[in-house]
Amino acid sequence: MPENLTNFLTILDLIGALVFAVSGAKAAKEQQLDLFGILIIAFLTACGGGIIRDVLLGETPPMGINHWPYLAVTVLAVISVALINPLLEKMKYPVQFFDAVGLAVFSVTGAQKAVELGQSYQVAILLGMLTAIGGGVLRDLLLRQIPVVFRKEIYGSAALLGAICVVFGNYFELSSSVGMAAGIAICFFVRIFSIKNRWNLPSFR
Amino acid sequence: MPENLTNFLTILDLIGALVFAVSGAKAAKEQQLDLFGILIIAFLTACGGGIIRDVLLGETPPMGINHWPYLAVTVLAVISVALINPLLEKMKYPVQFFDAVGLAVFSVTGAQKAVELGQSYQVAILLGMLTAIGGGVLRDLLLRQIPVVFRKEIYGSAALLGAICVVFGNYFELSSSVGMAAGIAICFFVRIFSIKNRWNLPSFR
Amino acid sequence: MPENLTNFLTILDLIGALVFAVSGAKAAKEQQLDLFGILIIAFLTACGGGIIRDVLLGETPPMGINHWPYLAVTVLAVISVALINPLLEKMKYPVQFFDAVGLAVFSVTGAQKAVELGQSYQVAILLGMLTAIGGGVLRDLLLRQIPVVFRKEIYGSAALLGAICVVFGNYFELSSSVGMAAGIAICFFVRIFSIKNRWNLPSFR
Repeated sequence: MPENLTNFLTILDLIGALVFAVSGAKAAKEQQLDLFGILIIAFLTACGGGIIRDVLLGETPPMGINHWPYLAVTVLAVISVALINPLLEKMKYPVQFFDAVGLAVFSVTGAQKAVELGQSYQVAILLGMLTAIGGGVLRDLLLRQIPVVFRKEIYGSAALLGAICVVFGNYFELSSSVGMAAGIAICFFVRIFSIKNRWNLPSFR
Repeated sequence: MPENLTNFLTILDLIGALVFAVSGAKAAKEQQLDLFGILIIAFLTACGGGIIRDVLLGETPPMGINHWPYLAVTVLAVISVALINPLLEKMKYPVQFFDAVGLAVFSVTGAQKAVELGQSYQVAILLGMLTAIGGGVLRDLLLRQIPVVFRKEIYGSAALLGAICVVFGNYFELSSSVGMAAGIAICFFVRIFSIKNRWNLPSFR
Repeated sequence: MPENLTNFLTILDLIGALVFAVSGAKAAKEQQLDLFGILIIAFLTACGGGIIRDVLLGETPPMGINHWPYLAVTVLAVISVALINPLLEKMKYPVQFFDAVGLAVFSVTGAQKAVELGQSYQVAILLGMLTAIGGGVLRDLLLRQIPVVFRKEIYGSAALLGAICVVFGNYFELSSSVGMAAGIAICFFVRIFSIKNRWNLPSFR
């Protein structure tokens, strides 16, 4: 990848982690956890998906644990939720916007990491999706709720599309930046459109 | 192992995975998850035990993620639950039958895998049992229920017996097919008898 | 480390595991799990933190699974809870005392293990804390409760202090026994004082 792109992705990745951490901190605060609990939930929401991915790939210790910016972003998120919460309440749309950014970036970087390690396409697609949704699933699990990504709107399936784009790009031997850009764009827009139009996947009754 | 046996075990393993996936899909459907959630729960119920086993053994990426038939079986299970559910309702006994098959096969193949990797007998027994019950525990955890295997009838302890047979066979230097056949038979019959006679392990009041 | 200290730590570690297993067995019994379920919860409460730590470090199979004394301690804990429960009820203070011992020892041995494997200080601190609180979090998760360490008194943050002492000791090139002794003492006393004086971390309302 060209270095500009790497830097750009790192920045998007940290923005995504920040928004995920904010969503974890808010949910933890609503359950009246103490400061320690809020920090843990925020951290796991931001990094849990990547940690599970790295464990499943045998890449230990996982990046989320080993890499200080994720901790810094977690602390920043918790401070934001503590201090400027009324502001965050008003920012529903920006939060959904950046959450979609995080979802898209995580699905694509997760899949790309598996591809670069020489894993099969199936592994790359599954782990890309898992990177994107794993943090939210952990958050809901620890706060004793059925994971929202299993019930509401198109979320995990948008992440699946993002990861599939990376694999397609690799299969057709495109530059990795093309596949990743396409994946981010498709995952992001599918997610945003599904919120706007209240698209849901079918459930069976 | 003779190749016939390997093939036979692979077929039993996939039948077990199918039945586990069906149980996951049914439970997820009852909680009104959407199609994506149902797929994830079905997949984790079928493959979760093996995935945890492989992670604990350092065998990454885990077989359930890396091996397409498990995905195929998951999709098949979800389609069955969506389309022919009334039929499945009537098939309570066949489902319990194959669930016992799955339990028996998973406990034995899990223990055998650990033995072949040169792990200690303790590791083999614990991981054999874990392979058999892990998927169901994950299913109940994600659907916010106390794992049924911790409460009802003889289930995990039957899996324990299956795994112990494999280790016994290895200790007495029997052919691995003997230990595995004995393990499958014992786990299967203990499980079936415990359902029929409503055997339960004691709990303390 | 001098051998005396290693032996002393091993003994403290097993005492900690025993007390954690007792807390798991008691919680499982209250939920009316059967004997199998009680054993699993007791084992995971005692060893879950160390197992997660070892998986995140790529040290497989994890010590808790591979090392028979932890199983023995689990069985001992379950027998104690089954037979002499009324006695245990009266022993609230001893249990809190040894739970604080377990917390302190686990946080310090977890951090020390990461340091010895050449991991960064951040990894050592996070994994030390995780070793200490992971078992309790797994117990609460499987029994469908929001982890108590996220809500009540100073618990995880005391573990954090213990792990930080180990890292400080290593940074200033002190003998590892000094850092570990300081970590155990600080974590233990912070925990005990927080119980006595009902210290809590702030939560936000």
